Amino acid sequence: MKIKILTLFPQMIEAFKDESIIKRAIQKGVCEVEAIDIRDYSLDKHRHVDDTPCGGGQGMVLQVDVIDRCLKANSDPNAHKIMMTPQGRRYNQAIAMELKEYEELVILCGHYEGFDERIRSYVDEEISIGDFVLTGGELPAMTIADSVIRLLEHAIKEESHLDDSFSTGLLEYPQYTRPVTYDGMDVPEVLLNGNHKLIERFRKKESLRRTLLRRPDLLESYPLTKEDIKLLNEIKEEENK
Amino acid sequence: MKIKILTLFPQMIEAFKDESIIKRAIQKGVCEVEAIDIRDYSLDKHRHVDDTPCGGGQGMVLQVDVIDRCLKANSDPNAHKIMMTPQGRRYNQAIAMELKEYEELVILCGHYEGFDERIRSYVDEEISIGDFVLTGGELPAMTIADSVIRLLEHAIKEESHLDDSFSTGLLEYPQYTRPVTYDGMDVPEVLLNGNHKLIERFRKKESLRRTLLRRPDLLESYPLTKEDIKLLNEIKEEENK
Repeated sequence: MKIKILTLFPQMIEAFKDESIIKRAIQKGVCEVEAIDIRDYSLDKHRHVDDTPCGGGQGMVLQVDVIDRCLKANSDPNAHKIMMTPQGRRYNQAIAMELKEYEELVILCGHYEGFDERIRSYVDEEISIGDFVLTGGELPAMTIADSVIRLLEHAIKEESHLDDSFSTGLLEYPQYTRPVTYDGMDVPEVLLNGNHKLIERFRKKESLRRTLLRRPDLLESYPLTKEDIKLLNEIKEEENK
Repeated sequence: MKIKILTLFPQMIEAFKDESIIKRAIQKGVCEVEAIDIRDYSLDKHRHVDDTPCGGGQGMVLQVDVIDRCLKANSDPNAHKIMMTPQGRRYNQAIAMELKEYEELVILCGHYEGFDERIRSYVDEEISIGDFVLTGGELPAMTIADSVIRLLEHAIKEESHLDDSFSTGLLEYPQYTRPVTYDGMDVPEVLLNGNHKLIERFRKKESLRRTLLRRPDLLESYPLTKEDIKLLNEIKEEENK
């Protein structure tokens, strides 16, 4: 897979490519990540890419012609073109699973400035990572790249990522490692006894408990087995004590 | 404000500090951003910071003693300590407004590995930026830092950020800049006439329209005026055509 990030701050993306798992995926040929400098597509000798808003107001607006040239020069015919904006559809793990199927992702980031409205007509979709305002789309674009590359990398390693939060539909169970006792806190005994059936039951129960307490919305779409329902009833009794 | 990011990949944070608005805020003394290498707090000569999970299973788990030492050495008594995890409360602009009031934020990132459950008892809260799985907490930690520093920087510049998406409670209105015509698409005439009352009405209406079409959930908590309701009725009629 090729991922191209169109940005005014290509150096932010370069550091990301050096990050351990991303670097390994690039070295293995699982993916290519390229930062494209939007300023290279300005026709202005000062490399301007923005102008003041029509109708007045603060801030600057990225120009449609510059972005159109930049997109045209950097998208394969099959590329899926994404624009990062707080107004887009909310990113989640299901969208990561969708995006990993494309051969090329082109991700357009604004930085500080807004986009000229007409730019929306040149992309396939708009994505937001959440209801907060950032100085630019670079961190959201890297967030998408990271979550997608991680899935590709796992696919190659044929490793299971079934225990991740959201991949099972439940939050992850609590994990422990040595030291067994620290600052008065112990690792739960069941994890030290080597009884795999009990360990599995403990983990499922704590995964259900955490989801019930922190994200009951996730339980609504989770396919509960009879055994799960029994565990949930135990949890509810314990929590009501 | 001081922001310390505790991580196994401090170099990812260094690139972020060079990013335009963050760099300016640091230079102006609005904030300090420091990357702390968790490995510096390992007592192991190979600088190990993780171990296999108790009870078996894939992956590695960050050790509670290493993290406790790292947090103790790097938190002022008044510091607000945050752990990045997909299981935490969902980050949004209201939380950014809360966090900007602290003198020191200490943000703990896992990378690939999980956290030993007992680590949770050493932080003040757990935050998630969304329902997706990343290779580490660094991008989410930078996301929080960016959104908070942006608010501090705006505060210093006494600039309004009232037009941002989520700050008004509505999505932002469409923006346009030159060229006035591009690829058959025109800037709406109202924005070119210099009638500020009509421009304001157009922007409010389009902000309401976009919110209605894309994020009707936001309208539920928005304090609609009589004029807004009139505009919404116009919009509904137009959209039903």
